[in-house]
Amino acid sequence: MRQLCKGNVAIIKGAVLAGCRAFYGYPITPASEVAEAAAYYIPQVGGTFLQAESEVAAINMVYGAASAGARAMTASSGPGLSLMQEGLSYCAGSELPLVVVDVVRGGPGLGNIAPEQSDYFCTVKGGGHGNYRLLVVAPASVQEMASLTMLAFDLADRYRNPAIVLTDGFIGQMMEALDLDPVPAKLPEKPWAVMGTAETRKNLITSIYLEPDELEAHIRKLESKYRLAQEKEARHESLRAEDAEVLLVGYGIVSRVLRSAVEQGRKQGLKVGLFRPITLWPFPSRALAEAARKCRKVLVVELSVGQMVEDVRLTLAGQVPVDFYGRVGGNVPLTEEILEQVAPLFAAMV
Amino acid sequence: MRQLCKGNVAIIKGAVLAGCRAFYGYPITPASEVAEAAAYYIPQVGGTFLQAESEVAAINMVYGAASAGARAMTASSGPGLSLMQEGLSYCAGSELPLVVVDVVRGGPGLGNIAPEQSDYFCTVKGGGHGNYRLLVVAPASVQEMASLTMLAFDLADRYRNPAIVLTDGFIGQMMEALDLDPVPAKLPEKPWAVMGTAETRKNLITSIYLEPDELEAHIRKLESKYRLAQEKEARHESLRAEDAEVLLVGYGIVSRVLRSAVEQGRKQGLKVGLFRPITLWPFPSRALAEAARKCRKVLVVELSVGQMVEDVRLTLAGQVPVDFYGRVGGNVPLTEEILEQVAPLFAAMV
Amino acid sequence: MRQLCKGNVAIIKGAVLAGCRAFYGYPITPASEVAEAAAYYIPQVGGTFLQAESEVAAINMVYGAASAGARAMTASSGPGLSLMQEGLSYCAGSELPLVVVDVVRGGPGLGNIAPEQSDYFCTVKGGGHGNYRLLVVAPASVQEMASLTMLAFDLADRYRNPAIVLTDGFIGQMMEALDLDPVPAKLPEKPWAVMGTAETRKNLITSIYLEPDELEAHIRKLESKYRLAQEKEARHESLRAEDAEVLLVGYGIVSRVLRSAVEQGRKQGLKVGLFRPITLWPFPSRALAEAARKCRKVLVVELSVGQMVEDVRLTLAGQVPVDFYGRVGGNVPLTEEILEQVAPLFAAMV
Amino acid sequence: MRQLCKGNVAIIKGAVLAGCRAFYGYPITPASEVAEAAAYYIPQVGGTFLQAESEVAAINMVYGAASAGARAMTASSGPGLSLMQEGLSYCAGSELPLVVVDVVRGGPGLGNIAPEQSDYFCTVKGGGHGNYRLLVVAPASVQEMASLTMLAFDLADRYRNPAIVLTDGFIGQMMEALDLDPVPAKLPEKPWAVMGTAETRKNLITSIYLEPDELEAHIRKLESKYRLAQEKEARHESLRAEDAEVLLVGYGIVSRVLRSAVEQGRKQGLKVGLFRPITLWPFPSRALAEAARKCRKVLVVELSVGQMVEDVRLTLAGQVPVDFYGRVGGNVPLTEEILEQVAPLFAAMV
Repeated sequence: MRQLCKGNVAIIKGAVLAGCRAFYGYPITPASEVAEAAAYYIPQVGGTFLQAESEVAAINMVYGAASAGARAMTASSGPGLSLMQEGLSYCAGSELPLVVVDVVRGGPGLGNIAPEQSDYFCTVKGGGHGNYRLLVVAPASVQEMASLTMLAFDLADRYRNPAIVLTDGFIGQMMEALDLDPVPAKLPEKPWAVMGTAETRKNLITSIYLEPDELEAHIRKLESKYRLAQEKEARHESLRAEDAEVLLVGYGIVSRVLRSAVEQGRKQGLKVGLFRPITLWPFPSRALAEAARKCRKVLVVELSVGQMVEDVRLTLAGQVPVDFYGRVGGNVPLTEEILEQVAPLFAAMV
Repeated sequence: MRQLCKGNVAIIKGAVLAGCRAFYGYPITPASEVAEAAAYYIPQVGGTFLQAESEVAAINMVYGAASAGARAMTASSGPGLSLMQEGLSYCAGSELPLVVVDVVRGGPGLGNIAPEQSDYFCTVKGGGHGNYRLLVVAPASVQEMASLTMLAFDLADRYRNPAIVLTDGFIGQMMEALDLDPVPAKLPEKPWAVMGTAETRKNLITSIYLEPDELEAHIRKLESKYRLAQEKEARHESLRAEDAEVLLVGYGIVSRVLRSAVEQGRKQGLKVGLFRPITLWPFPSRALAEAARKCRKVLVVELSVGQMVEDVRLTLAGQVPVDFYGRVGGNVPLTEEILEQVAPLFAAMV
Repeated sequence: MRQLCKGNVAIIKGAVLAGCRAFYGYPITPASEVAEAAAYYIPQVGGTFLQAESEVAAINMVYGAASAGARAMTASSGPGLSLMQEGLSYCAGSELPLVVVDVVRGGPGLGNIAPEQSDYFCTVKGGGHGNYRLLVVAPASVQEMASLTMLAFDLADRYRNPAIVLTDGFIGQMMEALDLDPVPAKLPEKPWAVMGTAETRKNLITSIYLEPDELEAHIRKLESKYRLAQEKEARHESLRAEDAEVLLVGYGIVSRVLRSAVEQGRKQGLKVGLFRPITLWPFPSRALAEAARKCRKVLVVELSVGQMVEDVRLTLAGQVPVDFYGRVGGNVPLTEEILEQVAPLFAAMV
Repeated sequence: MRQLCKGNVAIIKGAVLAGCRAFYGYPITPASEVAEAAAYYIPQVGGTFLQAESEVAAINMVYGAASAGARAMTASSGPGLSLMQEGLSYCAGSELPLVVVDVVRGGPGLGNIAPEQSDYFCTVKGGGHGNYRLLVVAPASVQEMASLTMLAFDLADRYRNPAIVLTDGFIGQMMEALDLDPVPAKLPEKPWAVMGTAETRKNLITSIYLEPDELEAHIRKLESKYRLAQEKEARHESLRAEDAEVLLVGYGIVSRVLRSAVEQGRKQGLKVGLFRPITLWPFPSRALAEAARKCRKVLVVELSVGQMVEDVRLTLAGQVPVDFYGRVGGNVPLTEEILEQVAPLFAAMV
């Protein structure tokens, strides 16, 4: 079924197809449209939409619904996502699958409602307390707003861990073709859930482990799950990386600008390529190391002062020089602006 | 004035000497004693202690008091610190000086009340939204619980930015000698504050910058402040690092175990040294790079599954191999346990 | 369909038959069982059960669901009901039909979890701000827990006003025969509701009227609704009141004790009768005045220090002497205790 | 010290003179000015002003400060006062002296910000759960805004019970002469308070009494306190009531209009008088019964649809006919409007 659709709405269409039947949220620009679409579509398939008292309430309702085995989600932006950090840490600790959409806005604090990518640290590194990780996917098109949301639900269930859809107001506001295959989602059995039945009465959803050895064992179990995810779930996309001398690295909306830069740069005879992480966690380190092996320079571009660049540098461990270019506050670099950054890199290499 | 004092109490004694006159908090083990000490001492010097409705309320009260020019603080642990992430992002965005103590407990979620170092990411990388940094100090003794709290207030004022005292239940519960010099703190003028006077009526404390260019300029200003702090405020301590072949890196309570390991290792003829970051942000990268230059191996030890180790690897950029050893859940490695990790490193080097 | 059923559960069975499809609540003894039954039964008929963050959140969710035209409810006890007073005033001001169950416990403050009738004032007189009334029904049996809940939904819709089911832990815990006729409820059209459709987009649910004349007109409109309810909806029950010299007045669980007292008193030759208000608001004044006309004494009995007695005195306006007997804290008078109060009244009359 | 002062400010000047050193509040029109004055004056005398997260938080902070023996207060209007009903019930149950100012606005719900007297029921009858009473005073001038606030603190301490200053936006906004005698308040000893000292460690401030007999004893104790207050603390004022044929009854701002009506009526030869309750609870029943004994008609005037009129009718118990005239929504009757109501009463009597 092909249609013209807005990014923020595509998230919910994907979620409904993925079997999500519970959305709890609190409005915040530029994520309110996601909630609006949820309020419109989710009750139509027999699900529940509820506007909570606050983001703290919302994430805890998602915790509850996920505990009962439902596919549940919420959506917010910076300030709201920050308020959810306690809940996210609890969900990870209790091994609950659920999806949180972060339509990133300018920060810190109130900042503004224009797009940024400044929530990389607080989602990928983990903004809540304790040793845990969140699965993070970063769509770059309206189609992916739907498909990566569906993937997020699958990954969340596969690893019993919260997943984040990290996007921004640009992709949220875009209208593009969206092709959906209305096949009912295959929902996994959840024998660990508390379903309100006699058999599941013994199940306990908790993140408390008072004895040090018990908590250590629990954390090691989480660690081994995360290691498995790192091996199996890293996703990326690349463009003309095979023979690139300068490799551009960027995700989400930025990757679209970088794609143009690669195309235009190649026309100018510059051997430039693109590496785009689709999953931010697990970070596609192996593929990036491979792609960057033959490069002479890497340029990371973000709508931040430099967050993902740390993971690129950690991955490349000094083997290739890594430069950074960032814009913030809602400003997005133009193709030409990128090429202006790229040209001197080639010059320096001669 | 020399006295026997508990770590959690020393924090407040330092705070009082630093001129802190406002404490807003919400109880959580193992940070409740800090609040208890605050409730006892701060009103005695004419200050305000208030138990708020929640951690969200507490951090926003600190925001208010700091806006009015007071030296203000709060203290919490994992779940509470997570709830404060929105507030911390607002404080950084509004350039407010204040101190937050995190007596780290086991996580994620409820975890337990035993010590961990698993809040490194959510304090050093920034657990809230947007591009910002927190100043983070990590005491390793009761004396430093006081002196680094005092430093935290000074740094906070110098950079108009929140500062974190990152500690744990071990140091909090220890009793050691504490030597305090009851010299009244020299408090800086704060012409930007809103003091309830006619002259300060025009002052505006906010983190909102609706125009992209304005927000970008604001973030660039923060960035340059952070760069200055990175140049001037990184602090560390080292022990027999000059000729070390294996350099141990650890902070807080772990550094005390590593110190014993160095001493015992040296007795066994192992050329082992210690590098202990005192400030976690700014991270003492220059000093670490210098100290590690002549080493053959670096071993990072944390009460986590590996968080600070990322900053060590970023710093050393592949020039020295970096290994990691972590314990979690409240378990703390013994000196012997460390030496068991160290021995094979020497073996491998031969 | 005849069954043995507990009072607290009968409330929800009645609600489901009445078409209630949304329950939002927060647990409190002795009302938690109502929520438990709601969690069990309401999702089975496609409805929503949600445990909110607090009673404040719960009543505002009921506000939301009622605004959308759903039959919605919540249940609580003393402290929780007090927290709902703002919400109840808003619901009355916005003319929203909904049902709140108050399983009254001992007060004031925490009090205890034993039964009382001490929430008469805060429900019948209105514990929130402004000029408004709540419809209040008071069941005296398990059967009425169901049937009066159904009536509460009907009255709420008829007058577009919140209705209270005022009951207590005794009736809530009783098991008695319950006879339900599973006929689907006839739900009224609600053209004023906001249904998420184009036609209802113009509807506005609000209680704000900034201009004094507008607000006065609104309050007069509410007043005339209330006058109509007073004329048409007062309900009562009486027993041997026709020739009674002493008329006992009591509601809810107390009326069952008074019924025994009437029966035993008559055996002893005492001309005693019972008047039991079924609706506390509108108060059955006309019927009471009629019943009391030929009496010589009225004795009001409550599980309070005297609340409904004010309405009895207002009704009788000095025409018949009104005595009061109350027990509190969970103590309930025995039949003999009542007769001990009654005997001297007859003696005094001679 | 004589000065021109606004009503809302006079409240705080009275409070400061009464020794109040703690104000916790949340802003709401038309009570925000009270908070503003508190923020300005209370810190000047070494006290604490704090804007809480919500009215629920504010009343619980007052609970805390009162528990510690401080004279503490808050101020709000309709919606905020409704949110405080749980806290007020707890304070009454725990026998805590404190003062709450209600600057009544139009209701129910949001209503508007114009003056009303529609919070009589929820303060005088008790809007929270359980058997309790609040002491309620109703100022009619700027001078009384100060003096009755001081009285409220005294009564609160004398009966260890919350006291309400029930006023409205008219008196709050008026500027009149205020004469204050800056004599330091004599504060009573509070051996029951929890002062943070070894001796008061055994003190327990609570409202929980799990055993029915214990709770009944506690409620009886409260009852006897209330009976004492009814005997000793009822206050009123009257004007030409001695020979009045028609007695006007009104409080607060209304009493000022009625005073003009009495004066003008007398000039027209109408034997009209005024009875003004100063304390609404305890209601000055004895004095009113006395004043009304020789009257032929009573006319109660309120800025409500009829709330205090119930207490007038209860007091007079049918011995004198009681009429009611009310305006709402912020409309206040003019002197002429009152006389138009009065004239037919005389006509009917002939």
